[in-house]
Amino acid sequence: LTSCLSIPDPRQRDALIHLEASMQTGGQVVLSDAEQRLDALLFKMKQEETAKEDFPPAMHFFKARDLIKGSPIFSLLQKMPKGGALHLHDLAIVDVEWLVKNVTYRPYCYMCITDNRSIRFIFSSQLPKPLQRCSPWIQLEHLRAKMVNVTELDNSIRNNLTLYTDQDPEAVYPSQDVVWEAFEQKFLALWGLVMYAPVFREYFYQGLSEFYMDNVMYVELRVLLAEIYELDGSTHDSAFTLRTYQDISRQFKANHPDFFGVRVIFSIHRGVNASVMTGAVEEAMKLQKDFPDIMAGFDMVGREDSGKPLWDFREALSLPAERGVPMPFFFHAGETNLQGTEVDQNLLDALLFNTSRIGHGFALPRHPLARDLSRRRGVALEVCPISNQVMKLVKDLRNHPAAGLMSEDHPVVISSDDPAMFGASGLSYDFYEAFVGFGGIRSHLGSLKQLAINSIRYSSLTPQQQEEALAQWQTKWNKFVSENAF
Amino acid sequence: LTSCLSIPDPRQRDALIHLEASMQTGGQVVLSDAEQRLDALLFKMKQEETAKEDFPPAMHFFKARDLIKGSPIFSLLQKMPKGGALHLHDLAIVDVEWLVKNVTYRPYCYMCITDNRSIRFIFSSQLPKPLQRCSPWIQLEHLRAKMVNVTELDNSIRNNLTLYTDQDPEAVYPSQDVVWEAFEQKFLALWGLVMYAPVFREYFYQGLSEFYMDNVMYVELRVLLAEIYELDGSTHDSAFTLRTYQDISRQFKANHPDFFGVRVIFSIHRGVNASVMTGAVEEAMKLQKDFPDIMAGFDMVGREDSGKPLWDFREALSLPAERGVPMPFFFHAGETNLQGTEVDQNLLDALLFNTSRIGHGFALPRHPLARDLSRRRGVALEVCPISNQVMKLVKDLRNHPAAGLMSEDHPVVISSDDPAMFGASGLSYDFYEAFVGFGGIRSHLGSLKQLAINSIRYSSLTPQQQEEALAQWQTKWNKFVSENAF
Ligand SMILES: [Zn+2]
Ligand SMILES: [Zn+2]
Repeated sequence: LTSCLSIPDPRQRDALIHLEASMQTGGQVVLSDAEQRLDALLFKMKQEETAKEDFPPAMHFFKARDLIKGSPIFSLLQKMPKGGALHLHDLAIVDVEWLVKNVTYRPYCYMCITDNRSIRFIFSSQLPKPLQRCSPWIQLEHLRAKMVNVTELDNSIRNNLTLYTDQDPEAVYPSQDVVWEAFEQKFLALWGLVMYAPVFREYFYQGLSEFYMDNVMYVELRVLLAEIYELDGSTHDSAFTLRTYQDISRQFKANHPDFFGVRVIFSIHRGVNASVMTGAVEEAMKLQKDFPDIMAGFDMVGREDSGKPLWDFREALSLPAERGVPMPFFFHAGETNLQGTEVDQNLLDALLFNTSRIGHGFALPRHPLARDLSRRRGVALEVCPISNQVMKLVKDLRNHPAAGLMSEDHPVVISSDDPAMFGASGLSYDFYEAFVGFGGIRSHLGSLKQLAINSIRYSSLTPQQQEEALAQWQTKWNKFVSENAF
Repeated sequence: LTSCLSIPDPRQRDALIHLEASMQTGGQVVLSDAEQRLDALLFKMKQEETAKEDFPPAMHFFKARDLIKGSPIFSLLQKMPKGGALHLHDLAIVDVEWLVKNVTYRPYCYMCITDNRSIRFIFSSQLPKPLQRCSPWIQLEHLRAKMVNVTELDNSIRNNLTLYTDQDPEAVYPSQDVVWEAFEQKFLALWGLVMYAPVFREYFYQGLSEFYMDNVMYVELRVLLAEIYELDGSTHDSAFTLRTYQDISRQFKANHPDFFGVRVIFSIHRGVNASVMTGAVEEAMKLQKDFPDIMAGFDMVGREDSGKPLWDFREALSLPAERGVPMPFFFHAGETNLQGTEVDQNLLDALLFNTSRIGHGFALPRHPLARDLSRRRGVALEVCPISNQVMKLVKDLRNHPAAGLMSEDHPVVISSDDPAMFGASGLSYDFYEAFVGFGGIRSHLGSLKQLAINSIRYSSLTPQQQEEALAQWQTKWNKFVSENAF
């Protein structure tokens, strides 16, 4: 027990406060005069925002979204060049309104309703074969023709494609089990719509547009490389899907020269058995060889708590090393708050398999050894605040573990996981939660700058590509600062 | 970006898992054979408990309480010798049922109802002077005599003395502001009941009994040292109150030789102005000199977010050092999730004033420098899980920051703050939340043992007293183990 008395020296106190502030993400960034002016503006905005009765990061995002939309900080974050989005999933990057209005209105679009009241879609030139546990297929064109008012139908379709709801989210999704079940059902509803060849191309182009509009210059996308199908029911292999991603990315880049590009992380559902996993890793190695530009590496998706732990797949995951084939891993790990389970070892195991980054890493602060390894090796956490809140890992985002990690500049990037599923879009909403929620009053323009730089430094780009991307980003950043600093 | 491949060695992996487990609170405790048998039993209980659908630490305590009561882990924790309770407040250590049934039924007990529908009490030999913003005083004896059924009245009184409710706590207390306002009103309602001289003695004795029954052997109590009053309206000074604490403690110890004792921390509301604070510190120094056995030190109470920061009182708090008078501090600090505010500096300032322990320290993980200081200096956090949940700092106790801190054996003790206010009693409920909620599957009997030892090691007892207390505790512990290990 400390018993010696102490009169703190105010100057020493100031020095310690500054020292602690300098330890945070971006705490050592030196700001130019213009940046300092912008930072002063931001500081004022944040003080005003914190003084209001409703503090958005403490609220469920579904209820906070409109408040955030009206926030001057959010407007600024939208304009800010945010660098890359490194944790996104293929089927949830486009506003579902676009799918309802542009996709379900196309001819040959069939829908059926499952026993558990979800929906499925397929495009087909003739009546598709019936689906198990589903109503007979109805052609949407015919259904809509018979209706006086299609708004209700369209709303119902939209609600089946996203978790977002204007009802009370706590009542609609009372537990992690319920929200994960809904999440997977909605993913299956999206599947038939998006994987139809003509839609697929437009969907991906639209997704890139939404991120580009949100001032994101680079994207790394987790992709299932599922079969793309045609109207006659014929399907393509995973190489075709990957090539399509590559073609559309190049086309998008040709139309938007200041967009840096896309890389993809081939992902497989963690529910598969060992032999399927082995096949997937072998396929990943082949794709990595055939498409070195766009293929970034390998990951698993699906709910960790109900799936198999990484360690169960250690044989399959050891294949690349055994064969001397480079295969970067980008594992989801620690997206759980059950401590001490088999699944809770995923963080350490991901690091033992030399993962390049960690998806979420929500449980990291409870794993001091994994935390230390991740820090020393520069294995960045892909932090997706809104996703973690909607999937019920944490209620008040000020309590998100990344708040503590960012207070000591642990390597992190901010991403949005499945923005369309959460009623968000692009990266700005998640940047808002991170900046205002995790950072509190103390985080500043330097923190934002560091997060943007992190998203390039921790990307799968080669060092040379990173330099190029950083140079491009710096130009955008300077423009942003000069246009917004007064 | 890490790109070299790795095949993890299972033996190295095991070693790392064990290393990480050994870093947690109690991770290095060596268990005897009997302890190992008890630990195996505990592990089985915990696995069964975690597999159930409703996981109490994830639920609001008001809803979880009955589940916890029925838990075999909880029964064991009740029997376990827990050492000391180091963070408690004077007016909230006794089950309110006792107050309703034993205190409000005494003669001369007057009650009035305030404008904001709280209640106040006073014992008085004649009709007391009217209170501002309150209904006329009614003598409860007369009121009850006129009623056919007093149950409703008694229930209403009880509800006014505790935050606990069987209604939906989220609906009753939707925000931190609401719950803190209710907390302070209920404290004022308790005041008139407890500070009446005859009640005060019995109340404190009853409080010690409740902790003793819960196998707590030592108590450090934050006390306001408010005026004790008599039936004729006369009042006593703070020395009288302190002497009463000392007398009752000695009496309790005489009746229970295996109870180690009580020390008190003189506390003043942080809402006061600088000159009142100076007066309080001066009074504390005098009391420390006059009652060295029972006086442990000084603290401030009341909601940090709405009160003045510690730094505002730096002149008063520097007085003991200036005068060379020993005055241990036990500051509440960091009981907030607003980051970067003036109040959020309390953690660092408490440490700069050489605080002996930190009350709550909820914000510590966001202050890497304060965290490091607290660790290196062995300044323990008094972690009160149920209090933090009811006061709406954190919803799911698995996300409590202490989970991360305990995974690396940061100095902590577990306490219950205001158990009667939260519908809890003693320490066992909070030990349950810490052991099952923070610790997950991984924490074990060694963690519990360490927490009990911590509560003596980080107490304000002298080193010699600590040795005595530890020896007494060890005897109890051995008995507990031998009676429960099979
Ligand atoms: Zn993801
Ligand atoms: Zn307290």
